[in-house]
Amino acid sequence: MRYELYYWPSIQGRGEYVRLALEEAGAGYVDVARERGTAALMRIMEKGGGTPPFAPPFLKAGKVVIGQTANILLYLGARHSLAPKTEAGKLWVHQLQLTIADFVVEVHDTHHPLGPSLYYEDQKSEAKKRTKEFWDERVPKYLGYFERLLEGSSGHYVTGRKLTYVDLSLFQLVEGLRYAFPNRMKAFERKIPELIELRNRIAARPNIRAYVASERRIAFNTDGIFRYYKELDA
Amino acid sequence: MRYELYYWPSIQGRGEYVRLALEEAGAGYVDVARERGTAALMRIMEKGGGTPPFAPPFLKAGKVVIGQTANILLYLGARHSLAPKTEAGKLWVHQLQLTIADFVVEVHDTHHPLGPSLYYEDQKSEAKKRTKEFWDERVPKYLGYFERLLEGSSGHYVTGRKLTYVDLSLFQLVEGLRYAFPNRMKAFERKIPELIELRNRIAARPNIRAYVASERRIAFNTDGIFRYYKELDA
Repeated sequence: MRYELYYWPSIQGRGEYVRLALEEAGAGYVDVARERGTAALMRIMEKGGGTPPFAPPFLKAGKVVIGQTANILLYLGARHSLAPKTEAGKLWVHQLQLTIADFVVEVHDTHHPLGPSLYYEDQKSEAKKRTKEFWDERVPKYLGYFERLLEGSSGHYVTGRKLTYVDLSLFQLVEGLRYAFPNRMKAFERKIPELIELRNRIAARPNIRAYVASERRIAFNTDGIFRYYKELDA
Repeated sequence: MRYELYYWPSIQGRGEYVRLALEEAGAGYVDVARERGTAALMRIMEKGGGTPPFAPPFLKAGKVVIGQTANILLYLGARHSLAPKTEAGKLWVHQLQLTIADFVVEVHDTHHPLGPSLYYEDQKSEAKKRTKEFWDERVPKYLGYFERLLEGSSGHYVTGRKLTYVDLSLFQLVEGLRYAFPNRMKAFERKIPELIELRNRIAARPNIRAYVASERRIAFNTDGIFRYYKELDA
């Protein structure tokens, strides 16, 4: 069985956390909207069936349709050795992924503080204020939390000696912040040496390295979650 | 074993979705910060141990500490018949809870568009704009989604004939919106008759009715997620 991943074809967005897990696992998948067009995605959204997702990404695994990024990773983690085998371990890794999801919402809010359905151009001054709060308070809080987990880890990864999907997602957070806020991130990175080392370790993994170099990896751009606006990177 | 729920003692907040599940299930639990003071909560946050949560709520179940509201419900749902027994069913209900969690973030953003660490008083005009977008776009989208699921359901609950924790959380959303935006919600309710019926059905359940009438239910107030500000309810 090949998985079918349904996500917007022109951005990394929330789909990227799923793509990274599928790529690391070497799992066969079709990136449906990229390979067959967006209509295929819209069709499933509208038709729905028994479990219509609220929004992309969602993953079709045989007959099951699974929505919500962290939920998809919960499912994939158990099948592709990207999560612990015990129930407590699974819950812990999932908890961390949900914390990452919270952070991703806050990243999006830096350029859309007045709401997702208004243009960035109509909320530029508010975006500046929100971005300041984000870097003053939220980035240190979230990344500091993961930095401490890595400091206390008994191995090279967040939860110990075995890679999980959370490590892949943290790689994506560092990459995204580097793209969206190059100056701010450059100044901040000395506070999170463990996270940077983790990022390097993930980047060097053969499957991830091959993926990032391939055309399957969409480039960061100003339609995604992480967006580069010069005025927000003062 | 009695569960220990760790959450802020003076608000419903995100802890309330867990409280409702524990109450409906008739599960024994201690609401730690309310019964033993906030210091007990801070102590666990700082001490951390093997799986330190990023933020409340978290649930102690024997030796396991589980954080993130939806993750706690995933755990409780399986143990107290508040979720389907099949894996696909569990994932579907969890997916819906994660969609509710996304909506809850947007509720919070109505009064804190510039970020959670600034005062409401310093972002009142932005809050008005965000609230307008919230009611114009986001409420119809989210509640319309759940309304359609209820329309298509084969039973009285979102996923069919059996109550799940998602139904309890939807009850809480209706209650919260009624408190925070009484005028707006009054005008909107005719568009979501199924959700209102579900709300009434949950309110009439013996355990929920007893809980809501008890002192264990904290009153809504302007420190929580749902906040009443007259100027946002124009």
